[in-house]
Parts: sequence; C-alpha cells; structure tokens
Amino acid sequence: MRAVQVVGFGRPVAVVDRPEPKVEAPQDVVVRIAGAGICRTDLHIVEGGLEAAFNQRLPLTLGHENAGWVEAVGTGVPHLAVGDPVIVHPAVTCGFCDACRRGADMHCATWRFPGVDGWPGGYAELMLTSARALVKLAPGTSPAPLAPFADAGLTAMHAVRRLTPFAGTGTTVVCLGSGGVGQIAVQLLKILTPARVVVVEPDEARAQTAYELGADEVVTLPAEAAADAVLDLTAGHGAQAVLDLVGEGGVPEQALRMLAKGAVYSIVGYGGGVHIEHLDMINRELTIVGNQIGTHAELGELMALAAAGRVTLGTETFPLEAAAEAMAAVAAGQVGGRAVLVPE
Amino acid sequence: MRAVQVVGFGRPVAVVDRPEPKVEAPQDVVVRIAGAGICRTDLHIVEGGLEAAFNQRLPLTLGHENAGWVEAVGTGVPHLAVGDPVIVHPAVTCGFCDACRRGADMHCATWRFPGVDGWPGGYAELMLTSARALVKLAPGTSPAPLAPFADAGLTAMHAVRRLTPFAGTGTTVVCLGSGGVGQIAVQLLKILTPARVVVVEPDEARAQTAYELGADEVVTLPAEAAADAVLDLTAGHGAQAVLDLVGEGGVPEQALRMLAKGAVYSIVGYGGGVHIEHLDMINRELTIVGNQIGTHAELGELMALAAAGRVTLGTETFPLEAAAEAMAAVAAGQVGGRAVLVPE
Amino acid sequence: MRAVQVVGFGRPVAVVDRPEPKVEAPQDVVVRIAGAGICRTDLHIVEGGLEAAFNQRLPLTLGHENAGWVEAVGTGVPHLAVGDPVIVHPAVTCGFCDACRRGADMHCATWRFPGVDGWPGGYAELMLTSARALVKLAPGTSPAPLAPFADAGLTAMHAVRRLTPFAGTGTTVVCLGSGGVGQIAVQLLKILTPARVVVVEPDEARAQTAYELGADEVVTLPAEAAADAVLDLTAGHGAQAVLDLVGEGGVPEQALRMLAKGAVYSIVGYGGGVHIEHLDMINRELTIVGNQIGTHAELGELMALAAAGRVTLGTETFPLEAAAEAMAAVAAGQVGGRAVLVPE
Amino acid sequence: MRAVQVVGFGRPVAVVDRPEPKVEAPQDVVVRIAGAGICRTDLHIVEGGLEAAFNQRLPLTLGHENAGWVEAVGTGVPHLAVGDPVIVHPAVTCGFCDACRRGADMHCATWRFPGVDGWPGGYAELMLTSARALVKLAPGTSPAPLAPFADAGLTAMHAVRRLTPFAGTGTTVVCLGSGGVGQIAVQLLKILTPARVVVVEPDEARAQTAYELGADEVVTLPAEAAADAVLDLTAGHGAQAVLDLVGEGGVPEQALRMLAKGAVYSIVGYGGGVHIEHLDMINRELTIVGNQIGTHAELGELMALAAAGRVTLGTETFPLEAAAEAMAAVAAGQVGGRAVLVPE
Repeated sequence: MRAVQVVGFGRPVAVVDRPEPKVEAPQDVVVRIAGAGICRTDLHIVEGGLEAAFNQRLPLTLGHENAGWVEAVGTGVPHLAVGDPVIVHPAVTCGFCDACRRGADMHCATWRFPGVDGWPGGYAELMLTSARALVKLAPGTSPAPLAPFADAGLTAMHAVRRLTPFAGTGTTVVCLGSGGVGQIAVQLLKILTPARVVVVEPDEARAQTAYELGADEVVTLPAEAAADAVLDLTAGHGAQAVLDLVGEGGVPEQALRMLAKGAVYSIVGYGGGVHIEHLDMINRELTIVGNQIGTHAELGELMALAAAGRVTLGTETFPLEAAAEAMAAVAAGQVGGRAVLVPE
Repeated sequence: MRAVQVVGFGRPVAVVDRPEPKVEAPQDVVVRIAGAGICRTDLHIVEGGLEAAFNQRLPLTLGHENAGWVEAVGTGVPHLAVGDPVIVHPAVTCGFCDACRRGADMHCATWRFPGVDGWPGGYAELMLTSARALVKLAPGTSPAPLAPFADAGLTAMHAVRRLTPFAGTGTTVVCLGSGGVGQIAVQLLKILTPARVVVVEPDEARAQTAYELGADEVVTLPAEAAADAVLDLTAGHGAQAVLDLVGEGGVPEQALRMLAKGAVYSIVGYGGGVHIEHLDMINRELTIVGNQIGTHAELGELMALAAAGRVTLGTETFPLEAAAEAMAAVAAGQVGGRAVLVPE
Repeated sequence: MRAVQVVGFGRPVAVVDRPEPKVEAPQDVVVRIAGAGICRTDLHIVEGGLEAAFNQRLPLTLGHENAGWVEAVGTGVPHLAVGDPVIVHPAVTCGFCDACRRGADMHCATWRFPGVDGWPGGYAELMLTSARALVKLAPGTSPAPLAPFADAGLTAMHAVRRLTPFAGTGTTVVCLGSGGVGQIAVQLLKILTPARVVVVEPDEARAQTAYELGADEVVTLPAEAAADAVLDLTAGHGAQAVLDLVGEGGVPEQALRMLAKGAVYSIVGYGGGVHIEHLDMINRELTIVGNQIGTHAELGELMALAAAGRVTLGTETFPLEAAAEAMAAVAAGQVGGRAVLVPE
Repeated sequence: MRAVQVVGFGRPVAVVDRPEPKVEAPQDVVVRIAGAGICRTDLHIVEGGLEAAFNQRLPLTLGHENAGWVEAVGTGVPHLAVGDPVIVHPAVTCGFCDACRRGADMHCATWRFPGVDGWPGGYAELMLTSARALVKLAPGTSPAPLAPFADAGLTAMHAVRRLTPFAGTGTTVVCLGSGGVGQIAVQLLKILTPARVVVVEPDEARAQTAYELGADEVVTLPAEAAADAVLDLTAGHGAQAVLDLVGEGGVPEQALRMLAKGAVYSIVGYGGGVHIEHLDMINRELTIVGNQIGTHAELGELMALAAAGRVTLGTETFPLEAAAEAMAAVAAGQVGGRAVLVPE
C-alpha cells in the first residue's frame, strides 16, 4: 500500500510502498483510511523537534488524526464489523491498568501513539490500531471530514471540559488563538458553559469566523500583546479562565497576566514555558493545568455533537500523494480550516 | 469438578459433578477458587426470591464473592499469568460501551452476573470469568479470606465513596446494621471521611466489634427504632448521611426520619421500600441514592487497603461440600463475621 | 400604605391599609415594590394548604417574588443606596451560621420567609427585608418584569444547576411541565448543559413556547401519561435526568419510570409523593433530589443571564388593587406567562 | 493598652502604649487577646519584605494569628456575647460581594488583613475585628494555644482540602517541610484522605514528630534534594500530590520533578518561583495550585477537629513584652512548635 513517511529530519516527506498491516492480537483492527488530518505536530516531527521526546527512528509513517472504515478485526472485537465508519482515537491503550479502568485513557502507562512514537500512523491507505481506540460513527457517515476531530477536536473537548468548573455564569473565558483547535474550542465553550467567550486572534478572517462560531468578543491583537485588552474587557479583574492554544513566545506571560483572582490557566499549546512566582500564585490563588489530548469517552461525546451539527470545522482535502505540498501549505498558513489527506 | 448448585427453589443446595470450564474467548480466564463467600443474596436465590429479577433457570451454580488463582487465560490477557492470586469482581463487563469506558462498570448494558444470573458462579473448584473482572493480588497473598470483599466489601466501598461529599468535618454519618458489610463500612468511613460515625446495631457482640473497628458511637437499638436516638445524638438536627444496610421492615422510614436538612439517604440493603413526600424532600432538600455493587477501580482500592491492614473482616471457613450446612448457619445468624466456602 | 392580605383561609384576599415598615436593625432594608409575582404557592396559602407547615396566623401579607427600588437602608448596608433597583431573594438569612458561610442560604437554621411564614411580603407598596436578601440590578433596570425570577426563576436555576452532573453530552433531560418555572428551566438547560431537552406539556400554546425557548422535543401528553413516550424517544433506555415541576397526581410514578440507569429524579413540584422500591433504586442506581428555592449567588447569576437577554419570561401585569381578580385568573389558567402585581 | 509594633524595617519590634480600640460599625467586635501566634510572615514584615506587597506604613501593630474573648460587640452581632471565647480569622471581609456569598472569603475584593496591611493586629491586649472574622469556641475553651490555628492551621486545612481529589486510596502525598504548618498538614492528610503520607524533613526531632503525628514515611533529607528519594518510594512513578511549605531555594524544582502523571503541585510556601515547560505540563498533565489562607467555614471545621483532640500543635508561650526576644528565637529556629505571645 501507499504511505507517507518521514525519511529524514528536515527533509520533505516521501510517498513509499509499504506492506499492508495485518490483524494479529485479538483486539487488533485494521482501518481503511478515509482521511488523515495534518496537525502542526506533524510539522514538528518532520523538523526533528520531537525526536528525543518520543525516541523516534526513521522512516516513520505520520498521521495521528485518522478516520475511515473497519477493514479487518481480531477475534476479540464483537462490537465492530467490516465496513463500519470509525474515528481513531490517537492513543492505543491497554484496557487493564488503573488509568484505563477509571477512563483516564491518556494516563495509561503503556499507551502507544501511532504516527508519532514510531508505530505507523494514518498517512496511508491502511492503518493498524486497537478496537479500544475506535469510536463507531453513525451508519452512512462520511469519515474524512471528521479526521481532524481525532486530535485537534478532542484536545479542545478535553481542555474545555476541564475548565468548566471555573466557567460559571457571569465569568469570562479567553481563548488565545483561533486556528483549528480554537474554532472547535469556541463552539464547545458556548455549548458547555454559560461564560462570555473572548477570542484573541489578530487575523481578520479568523476573527470573523470566531464571531460566526459564537465568540462574544474578539480581540484582534496578537496573543503576545493581549493582556491589557482582556483586562479592559473585564473591568480590570481579568478572566476566570484562559485557554492557551499558542504556548510559546511571550504568550504564556500574557496569559498569566490576564487571569482574575481564583482563575485557571489552561495549557494546550506548547513549545515555550513561563516563570511563575509563588507569592503571586498564592495571592491570586491561581491554578495552572496541562491538557493531554483527551479520553475515549470525550471523543464519543464530540462525535455526538458533530453528528448533531452543533460542532463544525472547515477542512480542505489533499490527495495522499500530495502530502509534502499539503504540509508546506499548512506551514505557510495557506490552508483555511484544517488540511486532510485523502488516499484515492 | 465439584460444584454447589441450586437444584430447586426452597430446597437445600446440592454438591454435583460438573465439567471443568474452558477458556474460549480472548479475554476468558479460568480461576481456581480459593474461597467463595456466602452472601445473603445466595439465601434469597435459594428461596426463589430473585428468580424473576434475574430470569434464573435451574440448576444454577451459586457464588458471586470469589477469590483464587489464575488457572488458564485466553489469548488477550497479557497482564495475568497462571498462578497469580486474584479477586473476582462480580460483574463481567464488555469493555467497549460508554459506561465501561467511563469506569462505571455496573452500568455496562450487557454485563453478566455469574452465580446470580445463570452463568456458573464460584461455589466450585473452577470458575470461568473475564480478565476484566479480575484484580491481581500481591504475590503470595492468600485469596480465601478476601473473597467476601468481592461483593460485601466492594458494596461498602462504593456506597461510602459516594456519600463522602456529604460527610465533611463536623458531620455525623449513621450506619444502619453492622454485619459483614457494616463492619467494612465503618472502617471505610473512618478512613475516607472525617465524620463522626454512629452505628445502629442491637446485638451486643456486634456493637462491641463496631467500637473496635472505629465507630464513635453505637446505638444498641434495632434500626426499626433508632431515629429518636440519632436525633438525640445530633441535638435534634439529624445526620448528614444515613447508610442503610437493612432496607426493609420499618427501617427505611426511620432512616428518612433521622436525616438532617441537606442530608443523603444511601441505600444498600433491599427487600422493602418507602413512601416519600415531595414537600418533605423539598423542605429538607434531601437526596436519596441507590448503590449497586461497585467499580473495578474501587475493588482495586479496597484490596490496597486490605493489603495494608487498614480494612479487615472476620471470616469463618467451611468445606465446599458443607455448603448447605454453612448456608443454614448463616441463615440462623450463627456465623461470626462472614462465611467462606473452601474447596479442598 | 396599601397591602394585600389573606384575611381568612378560603376567602379572597383583601386590600387593606397598613403602617409603612421602618428600618430598625443595621442590615434592614425597606424596598419600594415595583412588582410582586403571583406564585401558585400564594394560591395554596389562601386555601389554607400551608397553614400548618408554616405556622401561619392571619392576617398575612402575601408576596415572595418581589423586585423594586431601595427606599431606606440600615447602618450596616454600605453597598446599597436609596433608589437602587433590586430583586429580593425570598429568604432572609442570618449570615453567620455554617450554612450561610458556605453559601447554602436555604439551609440557614433561622431563615425567615416573608410573604409565607407571617413576615409581611411584597403584595404591598413597601416591604421590609434584609440587605442579605437583595441582588442589585444594573442602573436603569425596570424591576417589575423581573419579579417572578425571585422564586420561579431561582428555583429553576437551582434545580438545573444541581442536575448538570447528570446532563452531559449525549444525555436526555426531561422537563415535566412548562409553566413559568418550566419556561425558565428549558432556557437554563440549554445554556448550562449540552443535553437534549425534552419537554412534556399537553397544552398546545405552551408546547409551542417550549420549542421557541429551545426545547429539542416536546411531548404533547399529560405528564401523568408520558413515560412511554420518553422511553420511545430514548430507545427504551430512559432519560438521564427528569425535572418534575408537577409533583402530584400520577406524575411522580411516571417520572421514576422514565429514568435511565444511573439517572436523577429532580423534585421541584410538590403536593404528592411516591413509593420507592429499594431493589429498583439499587438495580438502576437511581438518585432522587429535592430542591428548595436557591442561593443568593444563583439569583445573581440568573439576573446576569436576564440582563444579557439569555433568559426571558412572559409576564402580565395587574394593579395591586386587583390582586383577588389576578389570583383568580391564575387559578383558572387564564394568564399567559406569569402574573405580576404592580402598585400604582 | 500595650501593643507591639514595627517601628522601623530591619529594627526590633517595640512595646508601645496605644489607645484601646472601640466598636463603631454594627458588625465590629473588639477581642481581648489571649494569644497571638508568631508567624514567619511577621519576620518578613519586620525585615521589610512585604512593604510593597501590602503598601505598609509604620508604625504597624503585628499579629494575624489571634484568639481571645469577646470584649465588646456592635449592634449587628446577635450571635456573640461578651466573654465568648473566639478564634479570629485573619481576613475581615464584606459579606456582600459574590465571593463572600459563595463562601470564598479570601476572594472578597475588599478584604482587609489586620496585622499585615496596616490595620492593627493582635500583638496587643485588645484588637478590633469584624463579627464575620470570628469563630466561636466551645464554652470554657482556653483560646491561647489555638491562636496559631488561625493562620498556620487554616492554611494547612485549606490546602489539604483542595488536594483531596488527587489523594485517593493508593496514592502518595508528599509534604515538603514539617514546621507548624507541616505538623498540622500531616494530621489533616491522615484525617481527610486515605493516601500514604510522606514527609520530607531533615531535622531529626521534627522527623520524629512527623512519625508520631501519622506520617507513613519520613525522608530525612533537605527538600532541595528529595526528588530522587520520593521517586524511589513510588517505584519511579512520583507522588500524586506534593504540598510545598517551603516555596523557595531549589525546592519548587524538586517538587515538580517528584510529581506523577496527573499529579498536583500545591503551593503554600513562598519566596521563590519556578520555570515550567509547557510540553512537560501537557505530557504529564500536571496541575499547579496556589493556596491563600482559607475560608471561615474551614476554620470552623478545624476548630471542631481541635476540640475533638484530632489535631494538635505544640506551642511555646512568651509574654507580650518579650515579643522581640520571641521573634528572635523563632528566627533562630529555637522554638519547638509554634510561639504564642500572651498579654499578662
């Protein structure tokens, strides 16, 4: 089958021929890929930025935002049949450890991350995963446009759910950034909380989209310079929750500065860091939380919302063979919405 | 192998010869039984009291409080090896439905209940269950004395955990009844909450045991007549939580009467019912919760507490062949602690 | 001043002349009434139905849904000035007990209930209350149309907030009844939860209003006969939460029957009761909660939503002098929305 | 009356004569001081370390850990009588803002901090505070030994309560430091959670005390070098919660390093800070929380535990006139337990 691999860090990805994956373990499932989302993490991988963190060896088949149809199942998968449309949770988990039994999938001590940690991902015609990673879609659903929900959407779902205790009636939640994750986050904030939602996004077109998706206010400034504007919008008190989808440059410092007393700084974007002062953490009684993807249950909930038309995401499709060009377009900011690779 | 079966409702159980269970599905596990607890539910089954509720057909091998050693495993059980000591969660669940994925094992829509619903239970030398039902014990643990924790202990754990939001510092929790479940509940209430724990138990020996296990007060009255005493102990305000392990006769009415404003009535015992008045539910802003066994994670937590010696339970062992006599002794209240059948 | 009083149980209310209330204690506030909502509880009081529960003596000035302007304040009210528009929380609380300090206003052991317990209510030109009962409205707000939010709205807010843990994505919440409380509840359910909202309401006009306020489905049957329809709408599983605004007749039995496993039965309406079976409470692991009015913080949140136009309620105004006629119209079901008495 | 004041930063405190405070506002209360705890914050104030943070002007009467008897009350204090023993919450709050109404006392926007922000504190014979700051003690209670609970104890209570969601059965909680706050924290961790409690404390005598108060393990290393030892004690996984009572030097870095996946870093000690990496916050899904003193309700709960003998604290008393010497002894680490100034 055809697959797209990283063959050298800093080099364009290559379309190669690979053997088709086979079912071996009882819960193995082979998925025929309908679409694989291109995530900024994929760009980082190509640049070598995650080589150490995930102990990567090349060549490596990318793709952790996948959706398609069940192609083959193992002997321990009674609830899925060949042809079922599915979305693929990024993590393959054991199902037996404490974390799995509590529903905290991302805390499984032995989880695998196909497309990132060396297991082949979904930039391919077929992909091997586990029945535990799959969420069945309604019969007749077209999987490709949903692919980016597997990671970008799920991360937004998880982070928004975890900040809801801070986002009651009368509060302000700020979303720093309004790309794919941000667009989904804004919709989820309006569905899951009664808070006023402020989006910080300097790009005019994205700002307009944010309004259309439900943002109550959009601050059209770079996130690196938005704290004063948020303080102005909150009578100087600050926001009760800040969702940071950037996580680098001067953004974390601004995020901390725009927090109200008792507020939460919710981290999704990465690349940078920030210095915290303990006296300030105490005097404002702040909370900081990191968010790692999301749970299988949350992906199921997100698919229910998508099926009901309550959460949408603009996508642009590219043939699998054009992966290198598509990734370059994403890197250059030329893709409106989210890019999805489609094998043909 | 030998097994103990209900062969007719209202008749004593019989020791019979049955084929040994075999592993078939990938997650199947055969457990060599070290001990099987005798639960009051087993007495109800023999009397025919659960025939309709569980659609039971005879003969039926009893036993839903089981512990032992792994005898054989299917192809999808990487984390268990032959000889591992294990305790057996009463429910066999699917692992794929929403409830399973959230860790709410008892809400699995297709769960099975070996020993109760017709699947063969653990009053036998061997028992077939699923890897999902097993909690691995520390190497060298003797499983038999732990068997009653699988249901009696787990039920106490689940119910106590769910009432902790009502059982803060300065509150009073009442435990109605102090048999096996009650003895474990008292210990857990002291471990998991800062509340004052009041046990209602008319039997002198059991009352003494309750004190030894940590009860702050013991009311030596029948639960059917204890409301006034609890009101006296709480300056007329009532208790913030009442855990009812009886659930029949006049006990539910008394339980409701001894509740403080904002309190919870937590139901474990069954057999009866109660009439609630909506105006009273509103004016006292009461909560009533039913508790069904418990989760796999809770059983794991309970085993950690037992291994640390923080939760104990007196048991009396009987040979498997003496099941009928042992059940008669339990029915007659002649067993101190909890009865456990041991194949020899 | 003019006031409307119950002068005999079973007799129409009377317009009488009463001395104006004066500020005495430091936190006393006299409110000039802009509007006083007519609640079904007022009809019950006139009929004598709450005489025993609240130890009422006649004559009694009705009115526990009040809004107006600050007329005079005591020496311990630094945050309110004469002329401020305010809505009046129904409870006058002490501020010092444990419940008050935790924000659980309705659990204050010494709370008073003007208009119900004998303290004069707001069917009058002026009313004495406490600074602790007041929520300041935005400058320029017209208080009269907001009066029914003080009780009908607050009760909906409190009950809906408490059922949110059961009302996640993919769940169904049923609202039994769609009068004033129900109309607010539907809006709040859509704002505060991602659940599908099903309203049960046989009246065609009210059913139409429910749709306009956001209901996803309306079952146009009497609540006494709606369980089967709700089961049909939920593939036989039942609803995860049922909010009962009726609470009498055969409605509670139907409410219990339409609950899914793990669901909550949330009680707001009263007058009746229901028998619960402990085995059913356990096997379905049900929760039942009573709801008593709501907290001061919740009233503040509700006013924020009303000010933002996110929660609305149709009202019909009557002169204070026409109280008897207005109450008769309410009793006869001739008032669309909620009736409000306005002194002139 | 006699009072102890800061008369110059960097200089010893002075005993001076000051006019007696008088009741003016309705909720004013004058407390006759039985004991005033010496807190490290007092040492920081004398050194000038909090001059900017609290906009302090000299002279300033110290003392924010106070207990005594009611000496005089305003007209709006119905629940307290002259002679009642009381402990004084450090914050004077308004009672009307949203934070106060939710029970989040420390988030009151206009709170005052006697003994720190310029309002006279309790290093004196008499002190003016508000009825809202007082917790009534049981009749006959000797207030002086309880004084340090007003801040050191309350801070421990608040921080421990907030980390309980992370401290379930089978978890490990680490307490960095075992002075006054730490001694109370260890006891509360054992009362409020089922977790294993590990104390890090290099001092032999304090380590011994930690064991006596319930610590399961004591690591006798400086907190600046304890991460490896904690990782060893947790099979390399790290602790589910780390309570940092030091907050400066290299301790915050060590605290972060000893956290398990999904763990919380709970900050009480201050003076320093730490750099966080967003990728690490995400990959380990960490939470960081700052804790500011505690609520009035928590102080009430703590007093209930102290009255029941479940929480104790060693104190050493000094005459008020010997404040300078006592503070020097505290600074030199020569006080076992907590120092309390007692007017005579």
